[in-house]
Amino acid sequence: MDITLIMRSEDINNLKGRVAVVIDVLRATSTMVTALRNGAEAVVPFLSPEDARAFFQSHDGDYLMCGERGGVKLPGFHLGNSPLEYRRDVIAGKTLLMTTTNGTRAIRGCEAAEEVLIGSTLNAHAVAKRIKEIDKSAALVCAGTKGNFSLDDFAAAGAIIKYLTKMCKVSLADSAQAALLLTEQHNLRSIFNQSLHGQRLVELGFEKDVDYCSQLATMDLIAEFDGVSIHLI
Amino acid sequence: MDITLIMRSEDINNLKGRVAVVIDVLRATSTMVTALRNGAEAVVPFLSPEDARAFFQSHDGDYLMCGERGGVKLPGFHLGNSPLEYRRDVIAGKTLLMTTTNGTRAIRGCEAAEEVLIGSTLNAHAVAKRIKEIDKSAALVCAGTKGNFSLDDFAAAGAIIKYLTKMCKVSLADSAQAALLLTEQHNLRSIFNQSLHGQRLVELGFEKDVDYCSQLATMDLIAEFDGVSIHLI
Repeated sequence: MDITLIMRSEDINNLKGRVAVVIDVLRATSTMVTALRNGAEAVVPFLSPEDARAFFQSHDGDYLMCGERGGVKLPGFHLGNSPLEYRRDVIAGKTLLMTTTNGTRAIRGCEAAEEVLIGSTLNAHAVAKRIKEIDKSAALVCAGTKGNFSLDDFAAAGAIIKYLTKMCKVSLADSAQAALLLTEQHNLRSIFNQSLHGQRLVELGFEKDVDYCSQLATMDLIAEFDGVSIHLI
Repeated sequence: MDITLIMRSEDINNLKGRVAVVIDVLRATSTMVTALRNGAEAVVPFLSPEDARAFFQSHDGDYLMCGERGGVKLPGFHLGNSPLEYRRDVIAGKTLLMTTTNGTRAIRGCEAAEEVLIGSTLNAHAVAKRIKEIDKSAALVCAGTKGNFSLDDFAAAGAIIKYLTKMCKVSLADSAQAALLLTEQHNLRSIFNQSLHGQRLVELGFEKDVDYCSQLATMDLIAEFDGVSIHLI
């Protein structure tokens, strides 16, 4: 099974017939899997705050507007992008209309893929199992940060690849091999500390989020984007 | 001083006012610094074999046609892309008309930069010293392989960054930090072994080239591309 890694959303290409795993580990995809684990019905990714707001205003139902720009909760939105906000008592049974700077754009960009999975360190082992099960070529899609390579996403991809190499025989593109070599030797929390995005979140007061998002394989769940919304499978 | 890393020639951007260090460690840039160390007058990079051939046929002088496609010496050319061919008795005093699959393209792509240096592991320490001396933002430009990220170039960039972080205070973009973290923990030769390009060269019978190109800081020399040719400074 061929495994490649895409460094930034801008480089998304050639996903037809492949499984795509979207990773925006600080924090969008970590928040999504946390929300679904805690009982959210589904997550609908929106490219812009305006789109999410327009949907919310024109639909009745158990919806919450969620997301950030510049790491901070959007004005008038119910929730920001901290996974710690997404407690069961707040979000169980709700459908989350979510827009973030990098993550939701990366997810929308993967629509050509055979299957789009939501990846994070939290569900890294479960994602690796799913890739093995589907038994097709896979691309780990690092969202990046505003068009730049993001070390935290790269390391989280490495964590998934590490599990995968233990489960089955894989053929790694150099990009995937580089992420694996990096993750093999360094602790994820310490890598996140050295990423500009991790440092920025700590400055904004979100150190606990960075701690939370660096936990490895705490959730045995798979979240899939079906072209409209993200839900557990 | 800001240090960033560009993953592939295709991503070259924003070089104005910066120093660019082009790295195609297996083997073009390693071959170029070797040739200059062994007395070549200059190296002129050409995008295509046809361009190199046309120049050779229309100019009198001490020229040699050099380069490869698919790792193999071009038909009718004097030399291929193995640094071990570039012995003093073969190339001293000659000007080399060189075309390679990835390296010469990356060099030509950096023309907007303030200064374009030729980087390899062989002269990694000297390149780091030069970046410190110029004291401007720098971009390490990994040539990549046919549009793909190449682990060997990334690791060689990491080796330069490692020297640089010991010489002066630098601010590393995530891309540069990732290369540093990778190189800190792994032996260069073993990384080259795990790169697809390194493996391909071994299959083609160039194992000694891979050994040679993984040597660290054996040459205290700086080669610069002035928009026309590459020469020692």
